[in-house]
Amino acid sequence: MKRIGILGAGTWGMALARMLTVSGNDVLVWSAIEKEIDSLSTTRKHPNLPQMKIPDELRFTKSIEEVCKDKDILLFAVPSVFVRSTAAKARPYVADGQIIVDVAKGIEPDTLYTMTEILADELGKEGGPKGVRLVALSGPTHAEEVAIDLPTTIVSASKDMEAAAFVQEVFTNNVMRVYTNEDIKGVELSGAMKNVIALGVGISTGLGYGDNARAALITRGIAEIARLGVAMGCNVHTFAGLAGIGDLIVTATSMHSRNNRAGILIGKGETPENAVKEVGMVVEGMNALPAALELAERYQVEMPIVQTVNAIVNKGMSAAEAVKSLMERGLKNELPQGYEK
Amino acid sequence: MKRIGILGAGTWGMALARMLTVSGNDVLVWSAIEKEIDSLSTTRKHPNLPQMKIPDELRFTKSIEEVCKDKDILLFAVPSVFVRSTAAKARPYVADGQIIVDVAKGIEPDTLYTMTEILADELGKEGGPKGVRLVALSGPTHAEEVAIDLPTTIVSASKDMEAAAFVQEVFTNNVMRVYTNEDIKGVELSGAMKNVIALGVGISTGLGYGDNARAALITRGIAEIARLGVAMGCNVHTFAGLAGIGDLIVTATSMHSRNNRAGILIGKGETPENAVKEVGMVVEGMNALPAALELAERYQVEMPIVQTVNAIVNKGMSAAEAVKSLMERGLKNELPQGYEK
Repeated sequence: MKRIGILGAGTWGMALARMLTVSGNDVLVWSAIEKEIDSLSTTRKHPNLPQMKIPDELRFTKSIEEVCKDKDILLFAVPSVFVRSTAAKARPYVADGQIIVDVAKGIEPDTLYTMTEILADELGKEGGPKGVRLVALSGPTHAEEVAIDLPTTIVSASKDMEAAAFVQEVFTNNVMRVYTNEDIKGVELSGAMKNVIALGVGISTGLGYGDNARAALITRGIAEIARLGVAMGCNVHTFAGLAGIGDLIVTATSMHSRNNRAGILIGKGETPENAVKEVGMVVEGMNALPAALELAERYQVEMPIVQTVNAIVNKGMSAAEAVKSLMERGLKNELPQGYEK
Repeated sequence: MKRIGILGAGTWGMALARMLTVSGNDVLVWSAIEKEIDSLSTTRKHPNLPQMKIPDELRFTKSIEEVCKDKDILLFAVPSVFVRSTAAKARPYVADGQIIVDVAKGIEPDTLYTMTEILADELGKEGGPKGVRLVALSGPTHAEEVAIDLPTTIVSASKDMEAAAFVQEVFTNNVMRVYTNEDIKGVELSGAMKNVIALGVGISTGLGYGDNARAALITRGIAEIARLGVAMGCNVHTFAGLAGIGDLIVTATSMHSRNNRAGILIGKGETPENAVKEVGMVVEGMNALPAALELAERYQVEMPIVQTVNAIVNKGMSAAEAVKSLMERGLKNELPQGYEK
């Protein structure tokens, strides 16, 4: 039995909290939203996971100090935009050498940092712990399915392979299979960029295009992410793995995905602003666009699908016109993709 | 305008025949089934492509000599099991240096040849042409979508890159985008093996598993095909391309796929025999199993998903038990996959 502190009580944090509890760990969940803690601890239900019963053994706290203290693992499960501020609040209470797992996905717009890079930066400031051991946990994982014990695979990524293996051990059970990977940068980059491609897939669906176009966008989409990743020093094979193409497949073929739904509305002719309003939640693919474009520019990598999605979302290009421009690019070889050694 | 002879009048052959006709080529279609030619040429409809109108300019013939003579391209679009016998019939009429495109997918059980290897073998016999130029055309391409002009991408693969580029040129139009690839073996191996994985995905769906498991099987499935391919001398990046993961995605996420449908029935508890009967057509994933296992054995490659599908289909293992055994394998790193250089 391990002691696990979870920061964030959204669907993914709570699905993992339940899973870790029923597989025999001592789990404590914290959220910055006190009402959320009150509701979860009394109703034993999460509003977005209606089929999931929160086990009695799973405990809640409103104290960030309590959630951070004396834990084998700290799990950051707050939305990507709150990772830095949450890390700042947690800083005084995190132990030296703490194993920290991040499950948020994104790139910080100003710094172009991944989530674990933000954690390293923010926890490394004065008064913070020394030598934290950072792990990114990412893969094709709808929370809705993990919440009801459907089989799932995931990648435990860290430059610190001992930490990655420890997390693999703790998160492995008869419904979750965990693979380790040393290429944390590639794993996190995939997780952040896939939403842009999923948005593009949604737009294609909204335009009335079919499975052939969807498979093409997914395949060529991960190729551009891999091209960027290799230019940034990542391992090309990470992008062919569970946190790469695997996560993109699950995001781009499911109606659970907000990016997909927003894209469909845009493809049908809605303005991007109205599509966001209608989906009613954050559309990460749109938020990730500026960082994606800046990275493509900085590393001088061609990313035609990302650029086309940007032209539609931010430059008023019509979706139909944009697809036409993608189809009419010069004829190409499939290989090399620009990422081979 | 190119003169194109098409052997085979199934859904894929006819979808391509129409596309090539409307994009300005002179197309002649032959089928071994005379009644099929009579019906297609009079009704101008294919029974499995009800939305598609066969253009008046598209011509039909019952003479294999006529379809083979004086053509810029010969397109083999017969089912994989008829490729050898059709090549034998065509042999006397095929010109020296003829460009031949194959769109059938499969591995011949006895010889373990790919489709273009069968063509090379059979056309190379006495009385046949010298120096035919073989191209495999493969990718995420439902015929139903190409038949109604939905955007599609495909790979033109050949060791003869001039021939591949010629085919790219001829098949490119405003709804089809063609990429060339020199690794014809990798392209053909993917096309043959993907159906085994799609069958496995169907079984998972039939067991009630969700999108997470499907994405995991697709991702780890293409990894085992890539591992086999690299052992056979293919380029690992082909498997991350349109004819690799792209084709697997379209096959494994669509209810058009017979493999998927047969798998679902098996997952729900039907015997494999009954599942085949109920689907009522060839289930290529089952037919490909012996060749897949033999190749895995010959090249000493670990293919746990293929072996599990075989245990279910041919050894009476229950689907639920089989999935359990996959989840309970020893903990692994994601990389290396056994295919890196």
